[in-house]
Amino acid sequence: VASSDVVIVGAGIVGCAVAYELARRGATVTLVDDRAPGFGATQASAGMLVPYIEAPEGSPLLELTVRSLDLFDRFVGGVCAESGAAVEYRRTGSLEVETRDESLARLREAAACLARRGVSAELLDAAAARAGEPHLTAEVVGGLLVPAHGFVAAGALTAALAAAAARRGARTPEAGRARLIARSGSGLVVETGTERFVGGSVVVAAGSWTGRLAIDGVVPPPVRPVRGQLLRLAWSGALLRRIVWGERCYVVPWHDGTLLVGATVEEAGYDERTTIAGVRDLIDAACDLVPHAWTAALVDARAGLRPGTPDDLPIVGKSGVVPRLVYATGHYRNGVLLAPLTAQVVADLVLEDRTDPMIAVTNPARFGAL
Amino acid sequence: VASSDVVIVGAGIVGCAVAYELARRGATVTLVDDRAPGFGATQASAGMLVPYIEAPEGSPLLELTVRSLDLFDRFVGGVCAESGAAVEYRRTGSLEVETRDESLARLREAAACLARRGVSAELLDAAAARAGEPHLTAEVVGGLLVPAHGFVAAGALTAALAAAAARRGARTPEAGRARLIARSGSGLVVETGTERFVGGSVVVAAGSWTGRLAIDGVVPPPVRPVRGQLLRLAWSGALLRRIVWGERCYVVPWHDGTLLVGATVEEAGYDERTTIAGVRDLIDAACDLVPHAWTAALVDARAGLRPGTPDDLPIVGKSGVVPRLVYATGHYRNGVLLAPLTAQVVADLVLEDRTDPMIAVTNPARFGAL
Repeated sequence: VASSDVVIVGAGIVGCAVAYELARRGATVTLVDDRAPGFGATQASAGMLVPYIEAPEGSPLLELTVRSLDLFDRFVGGVCAESGAAVEYRRTGSLEVETRDESLARLREAAACLARRGVSAELLDAAAARAGEPHLTAEVVGGLLVPAHGFVAAGALTAALAAAAARRGARTPEAGRARLIARSGSGLVVETGTERFVGGSVVVAAGSWTGRLAIDGVVPPPVRPVRGQLLRLAWSGALLRRIVWGERCYVVPWHDGTLLVGATVEEAGYDERTTIAGVRDLIDAACDLVPHAWTAALVDARAGLRPGTPDDLPIVGKSGVVPRLVYATGHYRNGVLLAPLTAQVVADLVLEDRTDPMIAVTNPARFGAL
Repeated sequence: VASSDVVIVGAGIVGCAVAYELARRGATVTLVDDRAPGFGATQASAGMLVPYIEAPEGSPLLELTVRSLDLFDRFVGGVCAESGAAVEYRRTGSLEVETRDESLARLREAAACLARRGVSAELLDAAAARAGEPHLTAEVVGGLLVPAHGFVAAGALTAALAAAAARRGARTPEAGRARLIARSGSGLVVETGTERFVGGSVVVAAGSWTGRLAIDGVVPPPVRPVRGQLLRLAWSGALLRRIVWGERCYVVPWHDGTLLVGATVEEAGYDERTTIAGVRDLIDAACDLVPHAWTAALVDARAGLRPGTPDDLPIVGKSGVVPRLVYATGHYRNGVLLAPLTAQVVADLVLEDRTDPMIAVTNPARFGAL
């Protein structure tokens, strides 16, 4: 039985970010997963950092994601410096476009909200939108440019977080999937079937698989898998300049000339496969948005399971039932964006018993005795 | 400089079949390729063995492919016995279907041709076609069933041929791509840039890359790449019983529950990538033919370069210019099907200087001084 200050269940971007933050602050950490870092939902993430598109005005999600985006420069810079890894991270801005006149009012309203917040944004007419992005479909009637938005290579970032955590002493044993979490003396034990890991605290960062854990007789949190598929295209010629967000897909121009197209949103249980219907929908949506995609090569199609929750907010905070058990799961579409904030908040909670205001809205207790 | 009786340039299914046949008859053989056996066009082949669909009535191609199909049982049986490999090989029959009334005359004519040849075949009305294959679209107006047709796992067969050849002493050095063939004493030398291989004879089985060889000052044969893309689907529920051949695609039911969907025919130079347009066309064609494909998972998409020739016939026979140089290339859509016959004919030519009647139509000389 290996023992550490904290055992983290799940090596996706959230688990790895928490592991790195805890290790950086001096804790001994063990990270338990049956997959390599970032090989769950993270590998199929487009790494979008677009709070003003993802989160509705007035929602707590907007406050959380904006706050986390503010941490991103230092987060990426720090982990790159410590791990020595190169991670593509670009604040290209995003261009959200509409192709129906009746939707322009929505863009105008969004622009007004951003103005009230003091966030830089620019409402573009069709000509200006296409002048900025000549590959855009001629159907575009207008767009909203938000320069603060960007994207990050989620897989590379997660690998870098794991490497940086390892440099700080975090262990990532080949231990199989965690199945059971139980009380053990003054701490907790995580069992994989073949191995046991004792921790002073346990952080559950198991994403869509959270609900499959047996947690000391407690009903697991209501996290469900929501499949997302995306395509990677080998684009030819001049790249797009920014993330372009359309009605049926978004496209992300990578520095290597590939274009990510995301993403489906499907309730398909634990089926992590790409599908004929999903790929077909993404192809059509991408080619409608940027017709030059018809000439592209298909590099690959990927699928991952986002951890959805009933209110689309993550579940971050202490268990109300099991002492020293902390949840950091249910990040749905924004696990990458919320990783820096989650890591900070969880480390504060585990190491200093300090409760960040974030937890008022992400508290597991909102779903009962968890 | 390594020396052998025969140096074979190209380790696709044709090169490997020739290597095995030569080695089986006692020759020392060296197989030169920069890819593992079957990793060129072969890996993207659906392994179709359907001469009565592929070759027009009255064409020499029909005679060649029918003759080669007759060799297939022994060919596969022999190489499996010698290599110990398991190779999926099924003579399921094929069902060629039409969805337009005006095309039924074509099926009737094909059925009459087969009857004249004494080949078993059955013309089916729409109800009978769908009774045999309940997944077929309701648009089907009729079908032609040819029980002799089938398919083989081309990649596994090629690996088995390479293994069987190796057991008979054939060498497959990691030598890079052959770039130059030149006279050397009484034999020939093949150069890769880093290594040289001397052979009493050289067989060019380089498929689409034949035209990129520098052959002793000779103009290379007119072989051009013709891209084919295919999809592999994870089908759910009851499989199709046979190969189904539609107007815009064919589908092949594999024993493991996957369904191959082939194939595009594209003049795209040496671009071996899958494309957005190709994948989209195959998805639509497959779902139109067997609508249940909409529920399938996409396992992968592959692309390969068929070696096309101006008359759609292979180029098999001696060079008229360079002594002891033999071509076995340009098999276009039927490299897998023609592999047994090609291997036999080339071995006869190289080892016994015996010219099979096949060579009357496949002779390189029909394209000039090659």
